[in-house]
Amino acid sequence: MPDLGFAKVDIGRFRRQGVPEVVYGEGKNAAQIGDILSVLRAEGQLPAIATRVDVAKARILKRRLGREFQYFADARLVRLGKARKPDGAGTVAVAAAGTSDIPVAEEAALVAETFGNSVERFYDVGVAGLDRLLSCVDALASASVVVAVAGMEGALASVIGGLVPCPVVAVPTSVGYGASLGGVSALLAMLNSCAAGVSVVNVDNGFGAGILAHKINHTGARQR
Amino acid sequence: MPDLGFAKVDIGRFRRQGVPEVVYGEGKNAAQIGDILSVLRAEGQLPAIATRVDVAKARILKRRLGREFQYFADARLVRLGKARKPDGAGTVAVAAAGTSDIPVAEEAALVAETFGNSVERFYDVGVAGLDRLLSCVDALASASVVVAVAGMEGALASVIGGLVPCPVVAVPTSVGYGASLGGVSALLAMLNSCAAGVSVVNVDNGFGAGILAHKINHTGARQR
Amino acid sequence: MPDLGFAKVDIGRFRRQGVPEVVYGEGKNAAQIGDILSVLRAEGQLPAIATRVDVAKARILKRRLGREFQYFADARLVRLGKARKPDGAGTVAVAAAGTSDIPVAEEAALVAETFGNSVERFYDVGVAGLDRLLSCVDALASASVVVAVAGMEGALASVIGGLVPCPVVAVPTSVGYGASLGGVSALLAMLNSCAAGVSVVNVDNGFGAGILAHKINHTGARQR
Amino acid sequence: MPDLGFAKVDIGRFRRQGVPEVVYGEGKNAAQIGDILSVLRAEGQLPAIATRVDVAKARILKRRLGREFQYFADARLVRLGKARKPDGAGTVAVAAAGTSDIPVAEEAALVAETFGNSVERFYDVGVAGLDRLLSCVDALASASVVVAVAGMEGALASVIGGLVPCPVVAVPTSVGYGASLGGVSALLAMLNSCAAGVSVVNVDNGFGAGILAHKINHTGARQR
Amino acid sequence: MPDLGFAKVDIGRFRRQGVPEVVYGEGKNAAQIGDILSVLRAEGQLPAIATRVDVAKARILKRRLGREFQYFADARLVRLGKARKPDGAGTVAVAAAGTSDIPVAEEAALVAETFGNSVERFYDVGVAGLDRLLSCVDALASASVVVAVAGMEGALASVIGGLVPCPVVAVPTSVGYGASLGGVSALLAMLNSCAAGVSVVNVDNGFGAGILAHKINHTGARQR
Amino acid sequence: MPDLGFAKVDIGRFRRQGVPEVVYGEGKNAAQIGDILSVLRAEGQLPAIATRVDVAKARILKRRLGREFQYFADARLVRLGKARKPDGAGTVAVAAAGTSDIPVAEEAALVAETFGNSVERFYDVGVAGLDRLLSCVDALASASVVVAVAGMEGALASVIGGLVPCPVVAVPTSVGYGASLGGVSALLAMLNSCAAGVSVVNVDNGFGAGILAHKINHTGARQR
Amino acid sequence: MPDLGFAKVDIGRFRRQGVPEVVYGEGKNAAQIGDILSVLRAEGQLPAIATRVDVAKARILKRRLGREFQYFADARLVRLGKARKPDGAGTVAVAAAGTSDIPVAEEAALVAETFGNSVERFYDVGVAGLDRLLSCVDALASASVVVAVAGMEGALASVIGGLVPCPVVAVPTSVGYGASLGGVSALLAMLNSCAAGVSVVNVDNGFGAGILAHKINHTGARQR
Amino acid sequence: MPDLGFAKVDIGRFRRQGVPEVVYGEGKNAAQIGDILSVLRAEGQLPAIATRVDVAKARILKRRLGREFQYFADARLVRLGKARKPDGAGTVAVAAAGTSDIPVAEEAALVAETFGNSVERFYDVGVAGLDRLLSCVDALASASVVVAVAGMEGALASVIGGLVPCPVVAVPTSVGYGASLGGVSALLAMLNSCAAGVSVVNVDNGFGAGILAHKINHTGARQR
Repeated sequence: MPDLGFAKVDIGRFRRQGVPEVVYGEGKNAAQIGDILSVLRAEGQLPAIATRVDVAKARILKRRLGREFQYFADARLVRLGKARKPDGAGTVAVAAAGTSDIPVAEEAALVAETFGNSVERFYDVGVAGLDRLLSCVDALASASVVVAVAGMEGALASVIGGLVPCPVVAVPTSVGYGASLGGVSALLAMLNSCAAGVSVVNVDNGFGAGILAHKINHTGARQR
Repeated sequence: MPDLGFAKVDIGRFRRQGVPEVVYGEGKNAAQIGDILSVLRAEGQLPAIATRVDVAKARILKRRLGREFQYFADARLVRLGKARKPDGAGTVAVAAAGTSDIPVAEEAALVAETFGNSVERFYDVGVAGLDRLLSCVDALASASVVVAVAGMEGALASVIGGLVPCPVVAVPTSVGYGASLGGVSALLAMLNSCAAGVSVVNVDNGFGAGILAHKINHTGARQR
Repeated sequence: MPDLGFAKVDIGRFRRQGVPEVVYGEGKNAAQIGDILSVLRAEGQLPAIATRVDVAKARILKRRLGREFQYFADARLVRLGKARKPDGAGTVAVAAAGTSDIPVAEEAALVAETFGNSVERFYDVGVAGLDRLLSCVDALASASVVVAVAGMEGALASVIGGLVPCPVVAVPTSVGYGASLGGVSALLAMLNSCAAGVSVVNVDNGFGAGILAHKINHTGARQR
Repeated sequence: MPDLGFAKVDIGRFRRQGVPEVVYGEGKNAAQIGDILSVLRAEGQLPAIATRVDVAKARILKRRLGREFQYFADARLVRLGKARKPDGAGTVAVAAAGTSDIPVAEEAALVAETFGNSVERFYDVGVAGLDRLLSCVDALASASVVVAVAGMEGALASVIGGLVPCPVVAVPTSVGYGASLGGVSALLAMLNSCAAGVSVVNVDNGFGAGILAHKINHTGARQR
Repeated sequence: MPDLGFAKVDIGRFRRQGVPEVVYGEGKNAAQIGDILSVLRAEGQLPAIATRVDVAKARILKRRLGREFQYFADARLVRLGKARKPDGAGTVAVAAAGTSDIPVAEEAALVAETFGNSVERFYDVGVAGLDRLLSCVDALASASVVVAVAGMEGALASVIGGLVPCPVVAVPTSVGYGASLGGVSALLAMLNSCAAGVSVVNVDNGFGAGILAHKINHTGARQR
Repeated sequence: MPDLGFAKVDIGRFRRQGVPEVVYGEGKNAAQIGDILSVLRAEGQLPAIATRVDVAKARILKRRLGREFQYFADARLVRLGKARKPDGAGTVAVAAAGTSDIPVAEEAALVAETFGNSVERFYDVGVAGLDRLLSCVDALASASVVVAVAGMEGALASVIGGLVPCPVVAVPTSVGYGASLGGVSALLAMLNSCAAGVSVVNVDNGFGAGILAHKINHTGARQR
Repeated sequence: MPDLGFAKVDIGRFRRQGVPEVVYGEGKNAAQIGDILSVLRAEGQLPAIATRVDVAKARILKRRLGREFQYFADARLVRLGKARKPDGAGTVAVAAAGTSDIPVAEEAALVAETFGNSVERFYDVGVAGLDRLLSCVDALASASVVVAVAGMEGALASVIGGLVPCPVVAVPTSVGYGASLGGVSALLAMLNSCAAGVSVVNVDNGFGAGILAHKINHTGARQR
Repeated sequence: MPDLGFAKVDIGRFRRQGVPEVVYGEGKNAAQIGDILSVLRAEGQLPAIATRVDVAKARILKRRLGREFQYFADARLVRLGKARKPDGAGTVAVAAAGTSDIPVAEEAALVAETFGNSVERFYDVGVAGLDRLLSCVDALASASVVVAVAGMEGALASVIGGLVPCPVVAVPTSVGYGASLGGVSALLAMLNSCAAGVSVVNVDNGFGAGILAHKINHTGARQR
């Protein structure tokens, strides 16, 4: 077998630079999450985040990690260390259709805030109550990027997409029942948005939307 | 085998009363369509309608059926005899998201008109251009029933559903590509509408929506 | 960023008028549901409804809300205040195929009753026992609107659609197993109904069907 | 490699006995179909059938195969040789919902007839016109087996299943559009039939239903 | 509203004759099941069956229903009264691919036995161990009807369908994981069987297969 | 019906500002496309684009529109007027997996170029030939945004997402067969990307990806 | 942007070694296919293969490429240059269920032969005619690897998987209709095979199966 | 009924030879698993394996089976007796994308080891961190066969398939959420791999992949 001669370049080091560490908490116990966060702190890599952490695990982690620990129950998210100072081009707007969509929206918002973005929240602005949505359209339209979070028919992404000049990151949620197919109906609707400038992430993927919003809001910063 | 003793009641006669005859033209040739329409005329059952009739068949039918014949190319619909006089409770509003949705919308509108309904059309009011939709919301809100026709993400039905007090009949269309899955994505979205008062018919089923709108607009008439 | 100049019209106020408030109880605890209902009572907005409330929550709510509180266990529905007096054009008929479909049917029936409709129930009239269905066809055919509730193959909607002149609101239920796909098979069947005048709401959406039936039965009233 | 020692029994000979040869014509040209039918005639294996043969191929075959050749255009079926004399337990009833379902129904009927069954046809008995179906329920109920052919929502199988004591072979057809999903919706509905005694074959598989009906109608004959 | 004039014929009485009563136990508690069975006994309608009854409910029912009560744990089936004497044309063969398919197979077998059929069982004859299947092919081939029960890829139905002259009732089961899609993969495979004479019932529907096998085995009896 | 009092704000004017006009050519004939482009030229709204225009229509359009007309056969795209000068934050990189993906990639590239972006193309860099992809990773990593175009398994988006710090807009294509399900498999894979910072547009939606890339690359410009 | 420092290793050169070049002919015209094959010949890289080439293109190619050109019409495959001498561990067996599956089977067989494998073909051995399959089980069982090609229910893979000790490469084909879902049903069945040692490639992917069979048959050769 | 005359050959004995016995533990209790393993030990058929055994059952089994018992918690796998000495052509490489994929990967690795293969593990080499994967490409490329285990978008299989000359057995896992559809998205992606030489087993089927890898690695041994 010939030596393929791959240089052992540290792509990983490159890949990680610029974004804080994020621990996906689903399927990990409190000890495992705590271990990773402790290492990151020891290495000076704060702020660090753990997502999908329930209240029970959060209590254990709080006792172990102490002063720098913060738990955001709505978003089921743990943060160790302070959020970075906002240094993006503008604001990240996070819009959510219904109250049941807020956990996903909060995950996106907190991830973006932690990474150094000024975040504005617009909750309960689903299209069935168009007046609430229209009352905040000026604010949405002046953001760098809008994260649009909705379950059921997911129409929020299309309506916002038609109203704002910036990119819209659409996050379908699993909110709904029956023909919502666990969020797949909202996902399909968002992919078929008649408004240009809308792209989509996985169902309930608030974390991914937060990262992406951060990256878009820092487009200029990366180029300088 | 015992005699089941079913009385030979003419449910069929009952079923047909009140609504004009409609011929589903798909898969029938001009001769077949012409035969049925001729019989209906002979029986005094005008106006009668044939749906999904292309231009070539329409030309043949015109020559055969003469003066009372009308062809609506957009809707691919043939009507023999005049539309009934409008005698419903109010107006049937037909809204369509994009120009590609117009054939389905016209089918619904013409069916409703033929059956005796005053119809108002609101085309090119897709949610990506919310201003056009909002400019006709007063008119929509005062209708007896709104038929909302849209492909792609089908958000029009939810947005209208949140703005009007009357029933909304949502018609998904096969307009779109890729993840639109031939109209199934719009269909799913409409079924998950966050607005109450929205119900859905099959993809591209303008005819069914027109009948249903007629029936809703004549609710009071049936009860008197 | 230019001012978009949206007038801050209260679409919301409009949207809500005419229909009582409904609280979607799924995923809310008794305290949350109680809070909303208490506010509505304080604002004089009774009758109000909460759907998908289990027995345990209902007990807590009963203690808190007192005399005006009613719980309908079959429908898992809470009502605060008395139903409005029936003032629609005619009767809302609610038909259910099997005993397992009754919870969804009852949700539709109670919502319609609360909103001011005279409701007639026809349960256990699935098409496998056609005699029971035929024995009530006169009553069904004289209703303003029929709500047809069925799981499994959902044939009830088509059969009723062929027998009555009024609109049929079809509600697929998740009753079934295997190839019923959680109600999607019944949903698809109903969307493909060979009878005109049938439209469909989401799986198990008794609430939506009840609202829609109410709106159809009040078509004339809105126009006056 | 050890010798597995399979006895070379002629399962094939066994398998074929009792049922005439059937050539699946789809994707075969006239020459290929003609060759097979000629061989079967030479071997004395008539009657033989070829299914899914269009008119053009049928013309060529007619010229080649001569007197014993018969073409059934509705069913797109070729038969060489006369049908066997009916010798089953009773009648095979073939019911079809709409005119578009007749080709599949005829394929089933002709296959059963050729194999030696007395066949009774009941066409245009879809559930939207329940009176026509009810007018022939006595005849259906006294058959040995009913083949129920329907597209769209496929409700015919369930309704017949509730009315007759014999097995019902349900054949979904690809008749429909949009959410009919090429016959899959009818297929799913039939699999979920609330009536016991219904089983299902593939979409448009009239041939398979005809064979199965033949086998059921000859249950006693096989046992003697 | 005109009187539709339906004769109130007792289709129901007809429908039920010839087959014992069956109670679908899923979602019913022991008290409900016991009530129905008690009524049936009082009316002299034994044997009666309840399907999908777990051990806990069975214990309660046993205490209440006494001597005539039988519980078949494998099939989760309760029978009140003795099975009828076999009076069909021949034998009902029930074949199951793996041990996990036995509960569904037993449900089919016990239903058929109770209704008056001689049943032969062939378990653990999946196609991966073809020798076991081949060793019982003579017995299968001489049955009146074969019920073929299999999960995973469901190949058993096709292989048996190629070996026997009688009808094959294929029952897909939910045995499997991942791409088995809860039994839908086996269902699809069985619907596409390359062997003629195979029809399919819903996933895990042993009860339906048992009834159908009974009806096929009594084809001659119904005609006399 | 009360006046809802919507201010007639010109949301549309706002919505369109900043992005050139784009005509979706699918389903429009040359005359229709030519009319729209002519109006846009008359209104001074160049450059303007028409997508999904085949060669035949392009020839007709060229004759009519003259000097400013350009046709890009690979992308099936017409442009009237010159591309704007690049004024974004950096480069838009467009990567395509195989040669069959180039039409979609070119649509994205040309749309972005026309809107005023410097575009770099990286074609034939599918993951099965990782060396080609790795040889251009420096260039990809220094872009403002990467558009990743791939059919079949769509792995390109994930691999690039792991290598670059900027947002990745993933475009699944309908390239493939069988289990590619018309591009849906690639779409699903991209939505499940294990790399953060990846979002997805509809199958074959090069146009949408081009617009989105433009918006991301102009994030800073909008905020100034 | 830091230099990522990837060594520019020629992974591609490595990747290609050992297997002849294969041109995927779908969507390429005769000129394009001819160009690639000519270059390969000039580089001394024969034998080379082009798949999915129809007769018309093959004729053009034959004229251009001359003596070394071979066209296999069944497999729609072009080969330039002679097949390598068989040098694998043993035989590659290719089994196909029906005559309609032969094109895919031949593609697999010819690819394997060209790459230097002794191939044995077993066609028309579908499970509905088990005798034919059993008559060749000794030969199948002594192969190095079996390629099992089948459409419809795809049971062939499971049955062979239970009979042979070597790996089975299952190739579902798009042969079938209705619920075969274009080959997806066979694909799902094969993935759920109850026999260990079966793996699956994409629908109609004879080429991929041929390559894989070659690689398995040369396992030992690679290690020496 | 004629005697079909099947020789009662012991295909089963043949089928089992060469591979140790494997007990599928899902749905069996500790007693049942223990009984089978005890019999196998008594018959001298060690090593034997039981898969999908949780910790609780493992504890009971350990007490019963004693010294030869081994439990591998990660893989949820029990082994009785020592692994065979490696005697294959080369190494079986098992690569896993993320930590959540390790249980499935370990099942594959342990099955292969037990059957007499030298196994090398490469874990946490998902494509989002391409450097880790590239650092082990030499080792992967010199294996006899690679088992590639990945959930989410399953890109690992394609990337490895493009880098190694040997067969790749792709195992999709159910790791993921939302649009991962329980592993079906990864499955579809792997089936559409643009790299030749990749075949796929069912979701989470580590066992099947281990067997297949064993068979490929022993290709030469079977032929000698």
